[in-house]
Amino acid sequence: MTITKAACIGGGVIGAGWVARLVLNGIDVAVFDPDPEARRKVDEVMKGARRAYKRLATAGLPKEGKITYAKTIAEAVADADFIQESVPERLDLKHRVLAEIDAHAPSSALVGSSTSGIKPTDMQVAMKKHPERLVVGHPFNPVYLLPIVEIVGGEQTWPEAIELAREYYAEIGMKPVVIRKEIEAFVGDRLLEAMWREALWLIKDGICTVEELDDIMRYGFGLRWAQMGMFQIYRVAGGEAGMRHFMAQFGPCLSWPWTKLMDVPEFNDELVDLIAGQSDEQSGKWSIRELEKIRDDNLVAIMEALSKENRGKGWGAGELHKTYVKQLGAAAKAKVSKAAEKAKATKPKKVAKAKK
Amino acid sequence: MTITKAACIGGGVIGAGWVARLVLNGIDVAVFDPDPEARRKVDEVMKGARRAYKRLATAGLPKEGKITYAKTIAEAVADADFIQESVPERLDLKHRVLAEIDAHAPSSALVGSSTSGIKPTDMQVAMKKHPERLVVGHPFNPVYLLPIVEIVGGEQTWPEAIELAREYYAEIGMKPVVIRKEIEAFVGDRLLEAMWREALWLIKDGICTVEELDDIMRYGFGLRWAQMGMFQIYRVAGGEAGMRHFMAQFGPCLSWPWTKLMDVPEFNDELVDLIAGQSDEQSGKWSIRELEKIRDDNLVAIMEALSKENRGKGWGAGELHKTYVKQLGAAAKAKVSKAAEKAKATKPKKVAKAKK
Repeated sequence: MTITKAACIGGGVIGAGWVARLVLNGIDVAVFDPDPEARRKVDEVMKGARRAYKRLATAGLPKEGKITYAKTIAEAVADADFIQESVPERLDLKHRVLAEIDAHAPSSALVGSSTSGIKPTDMQVAMKKHPERLVVGHPFNPVYLLPIVEIVGGEQTWPEAIELAREYYAEIGMKPVVIRKEIEAFVGDRLLEAMWREALWLIKDGICTVEELDDIMRYGFGLRWAQMGMFQIYRVAGGEAGMRHFMAQFGPCLSWPWTKLMDVPEFNDELVDLIAGQSDEQSGKWSIRELEKIRDDNLVAIMEALSKENRGKGWGAGELHKTYVKQLGAAAKAKVSKAAEKAKATKPKKVAKAKK
Repeated sequence: MTITKAACIGGGVIGAGWVARLVLNGIDVAVFDPDPEARRKVDEVMKGARRAYKRLATAGLPKEGKITYAKTIAEAVADADFIQESVPERLDLKHRVLAEIDAHAPSSALVGSSTSGIKPTDMQVAMKKHPERLVVGHPFNPVYLLPIVEIVGGEQTWPEAIELAREYYAEIGMKPVVIRKEIEAFVGDRLLEAMWREALWLIKDGICTVEELDDIMRYGFGLRWAQMGMFQIYRVAGGEAGMRHFMAQFGPCLSWPWTKLMDVPEFNDELVDLIAGQSDEQSGKWSIRELEKIRDDNLVAIMEALSKENRGKGWGAGELHKTYVKQLGAAAKAKVSKAAEKAKATKPKKVAKAKK
């Protein structure tokens, strides 16, 4: 199955990121967002994404899909076979939007939700016609570059919908991971939340600043996690003795007083001021746009670098990057040859006409 | 200040990693480890480190320092100006070893401990002569490649010792971050512990496998953390509205049921079996040595890639990588010119002799 026409409901950072990934893969997208600024915001993200893909797509890029702005959800989804919802994280809003999508989308269309935490079971109750086609397709920012997407099904979701989601997301260069059991926040955000909570304690208690904490990540374990995850890295650390040895050595730490996580830091103005102030000190010299460009360039550079490792086969996100670049290149050629065919198909007609 | 002679007490994965970093920077190291297998184990790590540096040091590498194996701690530290302790994480053992180091090392020598969690205050009580020169210098595996080192002082540590540690670690290509307040597990391991705990829950509850969790990291936020840390990435995610906006949006999640962290999973055989089994499935096709090579190649590749970003100035670990490569190259030349000088200095003498 191939996406021929997509709809994106919600054009914020995440929604616009989906728009960018889709159109850069040559797919037409209808956008619905009631924000009068939506078009400008999508344009902004598109600018960044085009810039990143110019560098990423070393083998060529298909002709960009067309973006149209719909006045209603009904209009946006009317002829879509893939719909991605990225509206704010409020269950009542999700219900309203999903009900409308469901009422107006073709019955064969797949519906993905970008929610980073709400269970699909709790969302699909609002879909009266085809709740079985709802999946969570949870991406990470920037959506047009980071490959991961967590797919989660709800109680009413059909296995076929999960499979179709896997195909659709892979088709636009992503790495789908299907979460086995539905829980709030799924896997990625559970882990991020754990880190975030501990990080807030460390800042609040004055153990380090946000810049120092970031440095400990990016000069340290972040470099490991970009290529192997936590478990594979620990397996290597365990050495020949293996994973069991590693766990025997570090397992007991769980009961040591090595964490503040048993408790939640109070989220007040003081904490926000502290962190926002330190963040200004750390990054105030760059605008967000500049930082975005640096981030995107770094992401492409890391994936490119990893695409040459493992005896040239590529490793992790680099292996996928290699495939993605080829795929975009092939799509570029396919479009060209389609156009060439079309030209050919037209030419003889003209010739025939002329002969008449 | 420059390290002229180092001693490494403990030659396990971490200790041997220090040996490798030091000798590859041209510094002689005396090793003490009572394990009869110590020499073989250090050789093994040296092999991996030499391989990695062959690729990393594109501008040249100084002549390798000499490794000698001492029969006692006293012998190892006798003429060292920098001593790094990397023995197992038991306070009684640390006390015994640090007492002996302190008794026999020159009084001007700096003592760094590789502990990943014990407070320096609790360790330095065993040092009767010069407790003020103990710092924690907590590295991350592989020590010869990952730049980060957390420096932590105890109650008796002199500020001058912290400063000297900063210089010494930077001299061998590391990124020192001084932790502002002494707490158990410092910063890096606090964060890792938070992740590890949540990860164990996710595996135990069957939400995902270790491979799926690793993929969510390495195709997702791991790629972000390798270049910016958590706070800088979130700042960018907050967009023009900034960090305050980001926090306002996600702060309340802290009180949502989005984590299992309030509780500790029971660490039993069942959990170990589950994880070790899944780890075999994920990585059993590679030997640990193969995985180590892949990891090291990937680390160098990522740092190399980042060294070309940010308009060629390099970014994060890549900026440091750039400097480090130059520094190693300069050291290579310095050794050469010293040797050339020596040769020159010798030659005239001979000439003079011949003239006589």
